Amino acid sequence: MAEAQANIGVVGLAVMGSNLARNLARHGNTVAVYNRSYGRTETLIQEHGSEGTFVPAKTIEEFVGSLAKPRTAIIMVKAGEPTDAMINALADAMEPGDIIVDGGNAYFPDTIRREKAIRERGLHFVGCGISGGEEGALNGPSMMPGGTDESWKTLGPILESIAAVAEGEPCVTHIGHDGAGHFVKMVHNGIEYADMQLIGESYDLLRRGLGMSAEEIASTFDEWNKGELDSYLVEITAEVLHHVDAKTGKPFVDVVVDHAGMKGTGTWTVQTALSLATPVTGIAEAVFARGLSSMVAQREEVKNKPLAGPDGKIAYASEEEKAAFVEAVRQALYASKIVAYAQGFDEIRAGAAEHDWSIDLGAVARIWRGGCIIRAKFLNRISDAFDSGEKFESLLQDAYFKAAVENAQDAWRNVVATAARVGIPVPAFSSSLSYYDGLRSDRLPAALIQGQRDFFGAHTYGRVDMPGTFHTLWSGDRSEVEA
Amino acid sequence: MAEAQANIGVVGLAVMGSNLARNLARHGNTVAVYNRSYGRTETLIQEHGSEGTFVPAKTIEEFVGSLAKPRTAIIMVKAGEPTDAMINALADAMEPGDIIVDGGNAYFPDTIRREKAIRERGLHFVGCGISGGEEGALNGPSMMPGGTDESWKTLGPILESIAAVAEGEPCVTHIGHDGAGHFVKMVHNGIEYADMQLIGESYDLLRRGLGMSAEEIASTFDEWNKGELDSYLVEITAEVLHHVDAKTGKPFVDVVVDHAGMKGTGTWTVQTALSLATPVTGIAEAVFARGLSSMVAQREEVKNKPLAGPDGKIAYASEEEKAAFVEAVRQALYASKIVAYAQGFDEIRAGAAEHDWSIDLGAVARIWRGGCIIRAKFLNRISDAFDSGEKFESLLQDAYFKAAVENAQDAWRNVVATAARVGIPVPAFSSSLSYYDGLRSDRLPAALIQGQRDFFGAHTYGRVDMPGTFHTLWSGDRSEVEA
Repeated sequence: MAEAQANIGVVGLAVMGSNLARNLARHGNTVAVYNRSYGRTETLIQEHGSEGTFVPAKTIEEFVGSLAKPRTAIIMVKAGEPTDAMINALADAMEPGDIIVDGGNAYFPDTIRREKAIRERGLHFVGCGISGGEEGALNGPSMMPGGTDESWKTLGPILESIAAVAEGEPCVTHIGHDGAGHFVKMVHNGIEYADMQLIGESYDLLRRGLGMSAEEIASTFDEWNKGELDSYLVEITAEVLHHVDAKTGKPFVDVVVDHAGMKGTGTWTVQTALSLATPVTGIAEAVFARGLSSMVAQREEVKNKPLAGPDGKIAYASEEEKAAFVEAVRQALYASKIVAYAQGFDEIRAGAAEHDWSIDLGAVARIWRGGCIIRAKFLNRISDAFDSGEKFESLLQDAYFKAAVENAQDAWRNVVATAARVGIPVPAFSSSLSYYDGLRSDRLPAALIQGQRDFFGAHTYGRVDMPGTFHTLWSGDRSEVEA
Repeated sequence: MAEAQANIGVVGLAVMGSNLARNLARHGNTVAVYNRSYGRTETLIQEHGSEGTFVPAKTIEEFVGSLAKPRTAIIMVKAGEPTDAMINALADAMEPGDIIVDGGNAYFPDTIRREKAIRERGLHFVGCGISGGEEGALNGPSMMPGGTDESWKTLGPILESIAAVAEGEPCVTHIGHDGAGHFVKMVHNGIEYADMQLIGESYDLLRRGLGMSAEEIASTFDEWNKGELDSYLVEITAEVLHHVDAKTGKPFVDVVVDHAGMKGTGTWTVQTALSLATPVTGIAEAVFARGLSSMVAQREEVKNKPLAGPDGKIAYASEEEKAAFVEAVRQALYASKIVAYAQGFDEIRAGAAEHDWSIDLGAVARIWRGGCIIRAKFLNRISDAFDSGEKFESLLQDAYFKAAVENAQDAWRNVVATAARVGIPVPAFSSSLSYYDGLRSDRLPAALIQGQRDFFGAHTYGRVDMPGTFHTLWSGDRSEVEA
């Protein structure tokens, strides 16, 4: 039996787990490592053993025995059954006070359930969202741990040692109890879906609409990445668009099948927002747009039997006019992106209220500034907004973002109107604009909907001029009664 | 103990249950009636006993004893716990072969669970969606029963005796096994949400945009109800808009608080569609629009700190131009409505595939022609489409609807573009248009999204020119490998 010397352990050594273990070792942690098949463990030690101190284990018991108390182990295995099995195996081998961390993309209600079960056994369970992909795991991810305050005391310094650093601060914070970490990671991914869809719509408008080449658009994104839109996703969009397929010499983007895949976190974000009655229209449209792209039979049918409509071409009279439209698209992207973040933060706020989590929204924005997929300069502004002490119900009311959207809106409206006329789908742009116009409407047609509901279902309504709940006797003399 | 003479029983005698019992009695059924508190039962007998043959019962045992075999009872109590309690009480008192019907708006996974539990006890359980509100229950609803084929043999003739009749046919059909009936009822309600939102957006454009009075718009809806849009919801919209508030003399719609309520079926429809990866964007925007209308704190904040933007007014040079825009809104409503139905039927098709239900989509359209809230002339066209034998993956490819949308699209595009420019929110109009343009796009920016996903997460992609799954070594030499 190895000496109990490791201050942290990693279970599951596929790429993410292996990279996380290396990151931990490189930062001075003594890292116990275990994988169900020992081959991966050997490979890790052979190829990267010199990067720091690893303590390889062949069995769970050996692994647990090599951890100093309170034993702290991060599970990096497949979500679902394999995670449950590993949690139970660890809990059986551990003792009260030890800490089990799930670093996968678990659905937060599962994390709440698991935390409760493990807590009842006297151990700590931490659902920890980790963003940044393989690169992030190795060089510094953004991390969103939930769980108890006590577990954070041990785990915090370890995670801080390996997190990405933005503006001098590690991109990790204790989000809140039980499932709070996985909840926030879920919404992070939902925002990522919206951001990617908005970038996709921008690309489509420039490519199909203005007839620009992939290379020209890549350069446009390079330019955009120097300003307000400075972000990882805009940066890699340029990279992807610059890339030329070696086999055909064509732009890479043109040889890729246009069926977008998804792994569930976007879907969960929207389903959860629906349960919280919180509009996240940009995220919803992004998820549905991926769904539509993968409706293969329907899209094949259209190829054989085209649905008529305009051809997507945007007419322009001069290079100046073309450049002005490119700039309008940039502004539409910025405004819509602000809406997507405002909606995402609304969902976090609603989730926190529902689950009694105390979540510091400013801290969430800060840890998203580095390491994660949605990292962006713009998040400094969001954290400034939340940290300013200014009170606002929507991020759109923060002075900076209010002005940003107000300034961008003429361009935004122009882009949505143009897309509608020329036949380019802009579900996320237009949905975000409608959300903005809905939010700023003094009166909404929801009053008519309440009238309809009262008519056919006696669902009652409120009056603007007096308190109470009312019903009109629609099938009777149409007098009003208090309900 | 009463003689076992009733061919049907109703449990729960609030308005819906009581009206359903009266409808059954009026059509020659002998109706056992039971309510937890006997008062309601007495009231029913006193006020409506002469309408047919009722067999009142004071206890569950007496109620079950008064039913002829196979005993058939429809439960009309509150969804959730009360329904479960009543199902169990009935199952305890009944015998194998008897039939328990849940006529409430249950969530279909609950119905699947209950059906399984009751089937294991040798009885039949039928989840039956009932649409039409109180009026429909009394005078002829549209009904969507699930459950076994055997239960339909007994239940079918009873339900046919009380269903609404459209074009000579009763608005009821055996939808499919276990939860199929409640699933289809759920999607029915989802479509209802979309339809109401589209009507609301039309109203908003005429009211705020063109400055028409509620009364003028009421007359417009009266006109629209004579054509392609002939439907219950358009009809009652006119009724609601004609209505003048007696207390103030103002249009009724102006005194109603504009916070739209909801009871869950719209939310379930979208959540389920998300799980099925089936886009139902019109329904989603409708549900979120209700959510937004009820974000009271955010909307209050806007009243104090307005978000800048255009004032919603649509300029027109002449009465002809105004009339032309009204007609454009009508066409936009029609086209968007077709999209909402196409998406709803997609969800039913996807749900049937997922749950192994054999659902006749033409029959679903037929039973929605009468009795239910979304009843519309237009459903004849949908049932014609599904019954034509013509194969199509989307209702938008049926010859009739394809031509209808193609003809309406110039107006539809004009309306969406105008709304974007003047600042009136049209989430359902614009989302439906983007869906249409997405579906008819030969190439979607989903290809770029696949490139991004491969870049940051090694999620791989397909190539348009060869089979297989590929990954580009983005952090390496950017060569392509088979994944």
